[in-house]
Amino acid sequence: MIHVTVWNEFLHEKDERIKRVYPDGIHGAIAQMLGRYEEFSIRTATLEMEEHGLTQEVLDWTDVLIWWGHVAHARVSDEVTDRVVARVLDGMGLIVLHSGHLSKPFVKLMGTVCRSKWRENDEKERIWVIEPGHPIAANLPEYIELPMEETYGERFEVPAPDELVFISWFSGGEVFRSGCCYRRGLGKVFYFRPGHEEYPTFYREDITQVLKNAVEWAKPSHGPKPTLGFCEAIEKVEDKFAGMDDALKKHEYITEAYQCGSSGQQ
Amino acid sequence: MIHVTVWNEFLHEKDERIKRVYPDGIHGAIAQMLGRYEEFSIRTATLEMEEHGLTQEVLDWTDVLIWWGHVAHARVSDEVTDRVVARVLDGMGLIVLHSGHLSKPFVKLMGTVCRSKWRENDEKERIWVIEPGHPIAANLPEYIELPMEETYGERFEVPAPDELVFISWFSGGEVFRSGCCYRRGLGKVFYFRPGHEEYPTFYREDITQVLKNAVEWAKPSHGPKPTLGFCEAIEKVEDKFAGMDDALKKHEYITEAYQCGSSGQQ
Amino acid sequence: MIHVTVWNEFLHEKDERIKRVYPDGIHGAIAQMLGRYEEFSIRTATLEMEEHGLTQEVLDWTDVLIWWGHVAHARVSDEVTDRVVARVLDGMGLIVLHSGHLSKPFVKLMGTVCRSKWRENDEKERIWVIEPGHPIAANLPEYIELPMEETYGERFEVPAPDELVFISWFSGGEVFRSGCCYRRGLGKVFYFRPGHEEYPTFYREDITQVLKNAVEWAKPSHGPKPTLGFCEAIEKVEDKFAGMDDALKKHEYITEAYQCGSSGQQ
Amino acid sequence: MIHVTVWNEFLHEKDERIKRVYPDGIHGAIAQMLGRYEEFSIRTATLEMEEHGLTQEVLDWTDVLIWWGHVAHARVSDEVTDRVVARVLDGMGLIVLHSGHLSKPFVKLMGTVCRSKWRENDEKERIWVIEPGHPIAANLPEYIELPMEETYGERFEVPAPDELVFISWFSGGEVFRSGCCYRRGLGKVFYFRPGHEEYPTFYREDITQVLKNAVEWAKPSHGPKPTLGFCEAIEKVEDKFAGMDDALKKHEYITEAYQCGSSGQQ
Repeated sequence: MIHVTVWNEFLHEKDERIKRVYPDGIHGAIAQMLGRYEEFSIRTATLEMEEHGLTQEVLDWTDVLIWWGHVAHARVSDEVTDRVVARVLDGMGLIVLHSGHLSKPFVKLMGTVCRSKWRENDEKERIWVIEPGHPIAANLPEYIELPMEETYGERFEVPAPDELVFISWFSGGEVFRSGCCYRRGLGKVFYFRPGHEEYPTFYREDITQVLKNAVEWAKPSHGPKPTLGFCEAIEKVEDKFAGMDDALKKHEYITEAYQCGSSGQQ
Repeated sequence: MIHVTVWNEFLHEKDERIKRVYPDGIHGAIAQMLGRYEEFSIRTATLEMEEHGLTQEVLDWTDVLIWWGHVAHARVSDEVTDRVVARVLDGMGLIVLHSGHLSKPFVKLMGTVCRSKWRENDEKERIWVIEPGHPIAANLPEYIELPMEETYGERFEVPAPDELVFISWFSGGEVFRSGCCYRRGLGKVFYFRPGHEEYPTFYREDITQVLKNAVEWAKPSHGPKPTLGFCEAIEKVEDKFAGMDDALKKHEYITEAYQCGSSGQQ
Repeated sequence: MIHVTVWNEFLHEKDERIKRVYPDGIHGAIAQMLGRYEEFSIRTATLEMEEHGLTQEVLDWTDVLIWWGHVAHARVSDEVTDRVVARVLDGMGLIVLHSGHLSKPFVKLMGTVCRSKWRENDEKERIWVIEPGHPIAANLPEYIELPMEETYGERFEVPAPDELVFISWFSGGEVFRSGCCYRRGLGKVFYFRPGHEEYPTFYREDITQVLKNAVEWAKPSHGPKPTLGFCEAIEKVEDKFAGMDDALKKHEYITEAYQCGSSGQQ
Repeated sequence: MIHVTVWNEFLHEKDERIKRVYPDGIHGAIAQMLGRYEEFSIRTATLEMEEHGLTQEVLDWTDVLIWWGHVAHARVSDEVTDRVVARVLDGMGLIVLHSGHLSKPFVKLMGTVCRSKWRENDEKERIWVIEPGHPIAANLPEYIELPMEETYGERFEVPAPDELVFISWFSGGEVFRSGCCYRRGLGKVFYFRPGHEEYPTFYREDITQVLKNAVEWAKPSHGPKPTLGFCEAIEKVEDKFAGMDDALKKHEYITEAYQCGSSGQQ
């Protein structure tokens, strides 16, 4: 059983026009679609809940967090941001959707600005699978065609992904690295491009298949938690300064060992 | 001509014992050693200078910034940290030495915690070249042997490097990824492990060769500055909603185009 | 159920000294240890069987092939080699053990020579987990210590692995990238360093855990089989040469479109 | 001074239609365009020359080899193929153009089949720079637009590139990883997609800038040539079997050290 929390800003859906597309919110649609898989236990959380619905308890329960945000990135508190980042570094999977590329947790984990070109122009997006042997490509066709989507274009200001699974073609002339895998700390991060609020993208079977694959890829793998900071030597190491209690002697020994002095001659 | 700024915390060297090793500071030693190459123009900066010696003007001048810090990471201001990070994303090279792995600019650029195992135990370090075809390995022997160094051990909590050039062996039983290349934004980042303040590491010819190679690798390469944010389509895109001014009609069109309704049936 | 075929050269075990370590062959030991997992269906194959035991039928059955070879790489036929390589590119996982780094299928898939330093010196090997969030590190300790093993040392002449999971420390002074993941075609390849025939390495629980993890990581993920070769355009493309049946006119059109002539002026 | 050899199959240019585009052959065009840079010393070689013009002497002279081939890959001898591959592993740079993705040296170095989708349809190709900080992107615009080119489409059956610099957009609906960097042995390999013989692509300034950048990136960097095969221990290693001349005793010692017997109990 994989514990999935679907987080959504849930503000666009107050607009009637968007509510018609996502009557239960984007999080509701994703939860409904992924909920058909018995191996997932799913909960949702939204911005305007207490602590954005992401208390320590919720995050500790969560194996994989799915994140959709757009207009209110700045309203996500630093405290919750740090909590999410810490959980990722501790092993929780994170799936960042669409405009979530500018969310605080993603930007912080990437260390870069994460901007891109964009326009809302009802263009066709064709998401090509370029790494068909990757688990996130399981049971997909060669490409997914979205009749209309918001356009994002390169340059996408992120670190080169550890694994690049999808590249999008847009009818307006752009390309985009639209399926990007990262390992950060003990956690796995997957960025997936589509999902503008005006289109029912998250009700699609093919998009749901991507999310299902990504959840399975991103789930914690329970490797060793490394001990960090000061640690004793494992092997016995010769004490080179035995009986050498004078700091100057030690200094001479070192410079001799290095075969160089502070003059830079070696 | 490559403009190099060598930044050093310059606090350990107030201690007589360390001053004996680095009478002109670690920055002074590095500047002296690299200064022998005519293609480099070198300046230095330290923590206790105004703005830590890293004004916007200095950073704008700088092609490659070398960073040594240890006990006073927290004293580096957020303002200067952000300025350094912004310059890296804008193309400046950054070479982070030894305990600089926990410096604010490096941690921010990595997006991870960057800790490791460590101990001060006068152990032997053997730095193996594992990617001998990499420019940073130019004119090096198969390995560099440091008779004594501080020990760092894996797990090193960083993103997997884009290119891994060196791996260190320590007599106490640890290994360490000691030469790590990253691309972040338009800039290049190189982490190089050795350089504890008690040893004259930076006066060595082989270590200097690494730094020289790294400066040349990390220098800006003057690619295109991408235009980001909203952008017009390059290709002419069919207006699918021509003459369709009713939002409901548009919604119907979209759900039909998607071959699915908000019920999730496709 | 994952179908695993364990392939072993099975020549060293004719020697009494080695037979004492592996009475049922190295393949027998691995099959016994992995056989305890209900999710694996296991068969074995060896060099001196008909077609080395790797008929098309066996390979078609196989999800993951484990390979141990050493003194008789040259005796593996080109036909079987090509068959194995083709199956990997078609999605079969391949786990290459120890001296299998010089086997024909691995060398062919890497495109490099794959040599390394080596000696038989009964040295201690400590295999450090450097990517504890990787599925192959699941349920492992921070490091695996092998009291005696054959030593391999860098430079290991392979392409930089797509994911580097383990680095080995040897008491003789070397390091080695000892857990290397590659994606090739639709298949996944994992190289794992230990397993010299003189030591009962493959009877260890920790080594078995690595192999179990690797089998699960390497199993086919059933992504799309790409259609390759000639393909029709998906989008309607303007015919720029409509009604232009004269080759010379077409040439003029092209050079004009390119804004350059064969003189190189643009 | 970088020594560049431009190799071309030079068969298409026997056709009048193609000869009009490349009167001096594709190799002649590339040599002419790159020849304007004083830092390059350039020679050319073609298929029908003795040893395809690639004698050991020529390859030893060559720092970077540029390769264009299409209809006669099979006519390149295995001997010359192996010679080229060996020189790459020894440090020579290799730049593979367009249909050279199916040439023997490239396929051998990749270890995969290297096919793709394709069609000749006079489509527009827009080559996006996705890694603007990479040296191969130096002095380029955000994208290069080719008014007509042969179309290649993903899936491109290659190992994930170590660095991905360009992605192409085609008007027919495909995308392609069109600038792929690989490190193989001591050498660097760059694959660059465009250059169909019917279009004067290699007379363009922007394409020439890419080739110039690639030559500089791919040139040998003169790192250490690793010693491989048997090597003595660097560190003194305890002889665990001192005075233990009986093989059985040694076996007992090993199994005890491993805390497991051949029964698999640990």
